[in-house]
Amino acid sequence: MQDRLTSFIEHDRVRSFIMAVIVFNAVILGLETSKSAMAQYGELIHLLDQVCLAIFVIELLIKFAAYRLRFFRDGWNIFDFIIVGISLAPTAQGLSVLRALRILRVLRVISVAPRLRRVVEGFVTALPGMASVFLLMAIIFYIGAVMATKLFGLGCAHCTPEQNVLFTEWFGTLGKSAYSLFQIMTLESWSMGIVRPVMEAFPYAWAFFVPFIMVTTFAVVNLLVGLIVNSMQDAHAEETNAATDSYRDEVLQRLAAIETQLRERQQ
Amino acid sequence: MQDRLTSFIEHDRVRSFIMAVIVFNAVILGLETSKSAMAQYGELIHLLDQVCLAIFVIELLIKFAAYRLRFFRDGWNIFDFIIVGISLAPTAQGLSVLRALRILRVLRVISVAPRLRRVVEGFVTALPGMASVFLLMAIIFYIGAVMATKLFGLGCAHCTPEQNVLFTEWFGTLGKSAYSLFQIMTLESWSMGIVRPVMEAFPYAWAFFVPFIMVTTFAVVNLLVGLIVNSMQDAHAEETNAATDSYRDEVLQRLAAIETQLRERQQ
Amino acid sequence: MQDRLTSFIEHDRVRSFIMAVIVFNAVILGLETSKSAMAQYGELIHLLDQVCLAIFVIELLIKFAAYRLRFFRDGWNIFDFIIVGISLAPTAQGLSVLRALRILRVLRVISVAPRLRRVVEGFVTALPGMASVFLLMAIIFYIGAVMATKLFGLGCAHCTPEQNVLFTEWFGTLGKSAYSLFQIMTLESWSMGIVRPVMEAFPYAWAFFVPFIMVTTFAVVNLLVGLIVNSMQDAHAEETNAATDSYRDEVLQRLAAIETQLRERQQ
Amino acid sequence: MQDRLTSFIEHDRVRSFIMAVIVFNAVILGLETSKSAMAQYGELIHLLDQVCLAIFVIELLIKFAAYRLRFFRDGWNIFDFIIVGISLAPTAQGLSVLRALRILRVLRVISVAPRLRRVVEGFVTALPGMASVFLLMAIIFYIGAVMATKLFGLGCAHCTPEQNVLFTEWFGTLGKSAYSLFQIMTLESWSMGIVRPVMEAFPYAWAFFVPFIMVTTFAVVNLLVGLIVNSMQDAHAEETNAATDSYRDEVLQRLAAIETQLRERQQ
Repeated sequence: MQDRLTSFIEHDRVRSFIMAVIVFNAVILGLETSKSAMAQYGELIHLLDQVCLAIFVIELLIKFAAYRLRFFRDGWNIFDFIIVGISLAPTAQGLSVLRALRILRVLRVISVAPRLRRVVEGFVTALPGMASVFLLMAIIFYIGAVMATKLFGLGCAHCTPEQNVLFTEWFGTLGKSAYSLFQIMTLESWSMGIVRPVMEAFPYAWAFFVPFIMVTTFAVVNLLVGLIVNSMQDAHAEETNAATDSYRDEVLQRLAAIETQLRERQQ
Repeated sequence: MQDRLTSFIEHDRVRSFIMAVIVFNAVILGLETSKSAMAQYGELIHLLDQVCLAIFVIELLIKFAAYRLRFFRDGWNIFDFIIVGISLAPTAQGLSVLRALRILRVLRVISVAPRLRRVVEGFVTALPGMASVFLLMAIIFYIGAVMATKLFGLGCAHCTPEQNVLFTEWFGTLGKSAYSLFQIMTLESWSMGIVRPVMEAFPYAWAFFVPFIMVTTFAVVNLLVGLIVNSMQDAHAEETNAATDSYRDEVLQRLAAIETQLRERQQ
Repeated sequence: MQDRLTSFIEHDRVRSFIMAVIVFNAVILGLETSKSAMAQYGELIHLLDQVCLAIFVIELLIKFAAYRLRFFRDGWNIFDFIIVGISLAPTAQGLSVLRALRILRVLRVISVAPRLRRVVEGFVTALPGMASVFLLMAIIFYIGAVMATKLFGLGCAHCTPEQNVLFTEWFGTLGKSAYSLFQIMTLESWSMGIVRPVMEAFPYAWAFFVPFIMVTTFAVVNLLVGLIVNSMQDAHAEETNAATDSYRDEVLQRLAAIETQLRERQQ
Repeated sequence: MQDRLTSFIEHDRVRSFIMAVIVFNAVILGLETSKSAMAQYGELIHLLDQVCLAIFVIELLIKFAAYRLRFFRDGWNIFDFIIVGISLAPTAQGLSVLRALRILRVLRVISVAPRLRRVVEGFVTALPGMASVFLLMAIIFYIGAVMATKLFGLGCAHCTPEQNVLFTEWFGTLGKSAYSLFQIMTLESWSMGIVRPVMEAFPYAWAFFVPFIMVTTFAVVNLLVGLIVNSMQDAHAEETNAATDSYRDEVLQRLAAIETQLRERQQ
């Protein structure tokens, strides 16, 4: 029974069908954003969405029946499980966010299409190698946020009320400071939007922000360099093994053969 | 007859002449943007433009007569055909866009100059390797656009009318959301221009936009890394083959010679 | 006595304890930015901060007692020494900056965690190789700042007063020009914010700014390329040595053995 | 006489002296931007600047006397010649730009310091390999500028006068369009500053600008990739030659020796 379920759910046709349902569901969820489409076919669209969701739930149930607890050993199954689970959560009035999250179901395309799966797995396997740099950036952000909040977040005595409102909005709490520093790290309006206005009240503010930009940019560049070097090594390792290994084996075998021949005659 | 046409159209002098006509045509089309030049020499400019176009049409006809259906096997011929075709389309009053597209004829420089051709071919051959990442980005954009439209596109009950106008302009439809997310991905005014105003009505909007920026930026970086690794492998493969292969061949030949000598004497 | 202190301070448990104190201190210093937390537990927070600082001072004293003058041979010890020193500096009313700098203590995490230490050491060892490009960029910035100050900093006779105020603010002194040029190099609002307004008074201003952007961007790109090539060479060198060296040694040994065998028989 | 001049001008002490004069001159020219310094020591500063210039002229004359026409074979000599020549040009009232260009003398630091020289030479030798991509970008810019001028530069019938003023300012002539497209390529305010306002009058403007951004960004990325691959190949070539060549020579020599031994015995 379990085997038949497994072979059914992993059948190419079933996979293609699931893929088609996902794409169809994506279109349906896209149509939901169109006011005119909803006015005319609103009920039909909701119905079709429910049908798609039902198919996904059935698919998950079959998979669960087929693999039992092994189901949760594959990260992609957990991924599908969570995504479908979100869609099943009760969407009370206050939780329109959950309704918006239903579109995440389209992400199931990734778990079904092997090529996309591999790309995402490539992304994810690259992450641990960058953990140290990420941790370092988190530390820099925390320090930067605390300093910015202390230095600029409380405004200043000689500031105009407008300035103090702005400064509180940008650096009033740790969270606001972290957001503003993220904006500054992406270089978006960092000078005209944030630092120049701050410098009108704190003339030496550049001494905090310019080094912050340099350090974080340098860290981001190092993430990029690390990624490139890793990919390159992987690619290089594969490539050389193919051609070089066979050559090296041949050289060593021939040398061994010559030695054997010499030894045989010596006897 | 066909052979003579082929040898004529592929003659270096004919090529140089066509190249000269393209460059001359580019200057003519550039002059068309100058009001003073058009006021004085408007008719002459139009006439010269028509002459250039006529030369291109004749060139295409000769090529077509020379190659017959093989003409359409070369992508660059189709490229030329479409570009010249656009210029021949009737330019009714409403279609001033088609008149502006005539400048695309300058792109013919690429199909005529071999070096530029190779650069563009290099670009194009790099694209398929990035298809998966592009598809992934399209999925992320689609999901992002649907979510942004649902979450922010309809405005909110407690928003001011000005806010609702802005939110509808930015995220009112799927297309507007996709455009706004593209802008956000390029980091242009993402915070001061879009996310900060949105956060005034939806305080947790950052929880959608900041991860969106991180994911799309990471995907773009991976495109870049893929490009670098591919180019490097190509370059590396060419380079090693030249020097290494001749060395390896020599080593293997000499080893084989030694083995033969040993075997001959053994007999 | 010195040996016992050394083994004590380098004991894993002591290290973990210090790490815990740093993280705890980071949280404490973060809480200091929260008004409500300070209103309720302000005294407790200050007390705990003093306790953490005391622990750091004691740690440094023990290290100093253990290593004596060798203490200053390790860059990380000097790093810790300066950071703790800043926290001990008297914080008079005017020097709220020093109080904000106390959060730098969190940086001690780097000197204690070996993995973060290695990342930072990697950053720092990459710097000398880029010294020439940095020096070149400093020269370009200096030249650019002097030129911008001379050309635009004094305003112009036919400018409106508002324009002259802006120009003085952007390019009035060498320092202001350098800051503005740094902003322009990061491409933040360079055109809409700075160059377009300047071009209203000096129509040829683009002839200064566009080349400046190209040159500095190109220099930054070269820094990046240098970083990548260096990292790659390091990675490549390590990788090849492992596999290739053992192979090469074996080939040369076998060849030597064959030669010896042949020579022996000849005698 | 010529030899003595050559050895004098290439003497280390003379070089160091020239370097010191350049740095001193840089400081002097920097001081010229300070109003207070000029008010107090204006005449002294001008005098010292004249002295520095005189030293540079004398240095050039000696070099010219030493090398005669070979002087112009070295690109750096021509570089120095032009830079000093600019400073000698008569600075009439209207030509305050020439006075600002005198600071370019600081660039002589590059021609004197060998390390900086090498960095710049590295930059310059990288340029020819990118010529095709640069040419391609020039073509794309030309086409883009002509199209933008034709499509948006003339404003539109149903536009407000304010819109038409903006559109003429951004895309009124070929030059203005090229500048605006350069701004858009650097992604500075491309959407909020330019494309969104344009889309209010031309709703399909994104169909021109978004592809333009993608194509130019892709071309820039390819420049970067080309630079990285080139630097890598150079670095790789150097590295492998050192270790690999000596190993390969040894293998081939030993194989030849074995063959000779075998042949000798056969006779």
